[in-house]
Amino acid sequence: MKKLSATDSRLSRRELIAGAAATAGAALVPGLATEAQAPAASAPPPQPPQVPADPSAAPGAPTSAMSPRSPFETPARTPTGAQAGSSLTPLHKLTGTMTPNDLMFERHHSGVPAIDPARHKLLVHGLVDRPMAFNVDELRRFPSVSRIYFLECSGNGRAAYRDPKPEMTPQNVDGLTCNGEWTGVPLKVLLNETGVRASAKWFFAEGSDAAKMSRSIPMEKALDDALVVWAFNGEPLRPSNGYPIRLFLPGFEGNTCVKWLRRIELVDQPNMSKDETSKYTDPLLGGKARQFSFVMDAKSVITSPATPARISRGWREISGVAWSGRGRITRVEISTDAGATWEAAELHGPVLAKAHTRFSIMWNWNGRSTAIMSRATDETGYVQPTRALFESTRGKGTDYHYNHIRAWNVDRSGAVTFAGAL
Amino acid sequence: MKKLSATDSRLSRRELIAGAAATAGAALVPGLATEAQAPAASAPPPQPPQVPADPSAAPGAPTSAMSPRSPFETPARTPTGAQAGSSLTPLHKLTGTMTPNDLMFERHHSGVPAIDPARHKLLVHGLVDRPMAFNVDELRRFPSVSRIYFLECSGNGRAAYRDPKPEMTPQNVDGLTCNGEWTGVPLKVLLNETGVRASAKWFFAEGSDAAKMSRSIPMEKALDDALVVWAFNGEPLRPSNGYPIRLFLPGFEGNTCVKWLRRIELVDQPNMSKDETSKYTDPLLGGKARQFSFVMDAKSVITSPATPARISRGWREISGVAWSGRGRITRVEISTDAGATWEAAELHGPVLAKAHTRFSIMWNWNGRSTAIMSRATDETGYVQPTRALFESTRGKGTDYHYNHIRAWNVDRSGAVTFAGAL
Repeated sequence: MKKLSATDSRLSRRELIAGAAATAGAALVPGLATEAQAPAASAPPPQPPQVPADPSAAPGAPTSAMSPRSPFETPARTPTGAQAGSSLTPLHKLTGTMTPNDLMFERHHSGVPAIDPARHKLLVHGLVDRPMAFNVDELRRFPSVSRIYFLECSGNGRAAYRDPKPEMTPQNVDGLTCNGEWTGVPLKVLLNETGVRASAKWFFAEGSDAAKMSRSIPMEKALDDALVVWAFNGEPLRPSNGYPIRLFLPGFEGNTCVKWLRRIELVDQPNMSKDETSKYTDPLLGGKARQFSFVMDAKSVITSPATPARISRGWREISGVAWSGRGRITRVEISTDAGATWEAAELHGPVLAKAHTRFSIMWNWNGRSTAIMSRATDETGYVQPTRALFESTRGKGTDYHYNHIRAWNVDRSGAVTFAGAL
Repeated sequence: MKKLSATDSRLSRRELIAGAAATAGAALVPGLATEAQAPAASAPPPQPPQVPADPSAAPGAPTSAMSPRSPFETPARTPTGAQAGSSLTPLHKLTGTMTPNDLMFERHHSGVPAIDPARHKLLVHGLVDRPMAFNVDELRRFPSVSRIYFLECSGNGRAAYRDPKPEMTPQNVDGLTCNGEWTGVPLKVLLNETGVRASAKWFFAEGSDAAKMSRSIPMEKALDDALVVWAFNGEPLRPSNGYPIRLFLPGFEGNTCVKWLRRIELVDQPNMSKDETSKYTDPLLGGKARQFSFVMDAKSVITSPATPARISRGWREISGVAWSGRGRITRVEISTDAGATWEAAELHGPVLAKAHTRFSIMWNWNGRSTAIMSRATDETGYVQPTRALFESTRGKGTDYHYNHIRAWNVDRSGAVTFAGAL
């Protein structure tokens, strides 16, 4: 650990006691046990919550069925409403690696269906020996696994690539990713029950939403680490996250992890559904397109300091998350001089394959304007590319899989804003 | 993986389609995006939520700021209200190892204080070279760490030990424990700023609640893995969990991890506060008592099947969690014949020190009445004791640290009930 400069924290006990006495006259407002909600766009600016000056002066709130957040903490996904097809995880308000269930990003093509788990079934059919339909209770009788993995929409970063704006936060830039503990049954366990015919080369997964979101996946993934999951971070999936069951393909783009999963059909070739032809293919240079680009490549983003932070001189932590769909993150480097030099950040363990990894480094800001950025390397040796390299390989008109290096400007006032890619 | 017997899942595609058609006439109720609340004790029994028979027949709910739970999932902590000093995590409704933030158990002696983080300070004083007070922003400028650890109240299991009842669920028996990712600054980093005098042997930690909950802790722990934390599972601590900051002592009993932390005083001997004399000492045989019994010993509990489950014959998973304050869990054994024989369960990775570890084993229930139980071993070689061994060491009148083996009865109808200890 690096030596820190002196902080402003030193003071005498007399000063502390005097300060406490000065605020002891503020109004007491007991019972703050209400869930803070994000204000609507048209609402007046929120008033700061009122709390006792001395919280130890009177008994506090009683036990409750569900712990509300502090009224001083108001994270929220954005955007919301019927016109938004996705909502974004507020990465800049999070620490560590786990994403709270109610802040996990959403991406759906026809809204969040309401499903009765007692009536939901997963049909496994096609090139199998024995077609079977499993209800949720039956799925839960199989041997389950719980594993920590990231999930990322393949469109994550599109707005920041096409139209970067200084006011973009990590939520705006890269909020279509989350990380947590998934619990479910390996798909290969279910296929052991149905049998698999030799002619089965792909499987076709279909959801119960009105879009009937569907993708074709190679059988290799089914027999590797594919899961049918019912829980995230210890509790049942939330409806926006696929309740009661979804497909989960570690490291693959989010849309392949079909939510509200109702059907898996083993087939001899891809279905060429609308979701793998009109969407979720990557335009390349020369008018070609890359299809079935499943794996999310290595990527990192600084989450602190980042928009809308304003920093002061001296030591602070630069922190963020990195991940790769191809395995473990082995290295994250930080530049605090707009890419001229790079230094290795600390990776916080346990560093897990196909999972968000928190990185950090201490930085002594000297008050000059600069740009800070991060660069991830994964266990395959792949290095997160610059935007220039990204575009030279994929073409400027590319779509999906925007994993180039992100940068944040710091001006002389300490204001941090999104710089796009340098 | 063990071979499963045939399930009831096999059916023809014709049967599946006929079943779907039969339920297609049910009423459509769009927009179920409301947070399900646990019913009050006096409320009428809840009606099952109404959902479309075919969820793919119409668009679903739009994106939202916070993902609500499904109305079919209504976990809740119990008991609630001003007379309850604690509320319990519903372990039997959880999977994997992470505890959702709003379901983490509570234990407080004078309620949950409401604290403005902008006015909150942590004073570090006593046998230091430079007394300092840190506000929350200052704490967050230090190098942070994020680590997965369990937390357990030392009184966990008391009701089940003193007055076991068949209707007790895992929540009732052992709900005063949780597990997740804690983010904060190592206490030794702060002490590096204040300096530590050679005469400092203990530190005294005090909370901001009306009880001024306080404990004396040996300096060795401060210089080992003690943390001052501000986040759990990625987001700020909730008020019931210590917002804005709490002490976190990995593996130590929960009450030492002082919530709403406002003061750490380095001292040459323990304070002998009310919370370490009248409470949180363990009566032993012969009228003596064990004081400063900080570390939570190895323990395990089966969470499924358990009260109020009713199981059917055939293969199913027995699953639960095990943990030790002394390091990693190395072995969990399961008995399905009331303790006559034991078999090693699978431990689900990553197996982390001082963290909940999920275990499971497949079981083919033959329809006879029996009892199932689990027994944990940690990396020190310590084995979770029987109740008889526990009592012979500690005396029947012991208090706190109830880590003896738990058992669940299964009767011939398949009903699972709490058996206490066999």
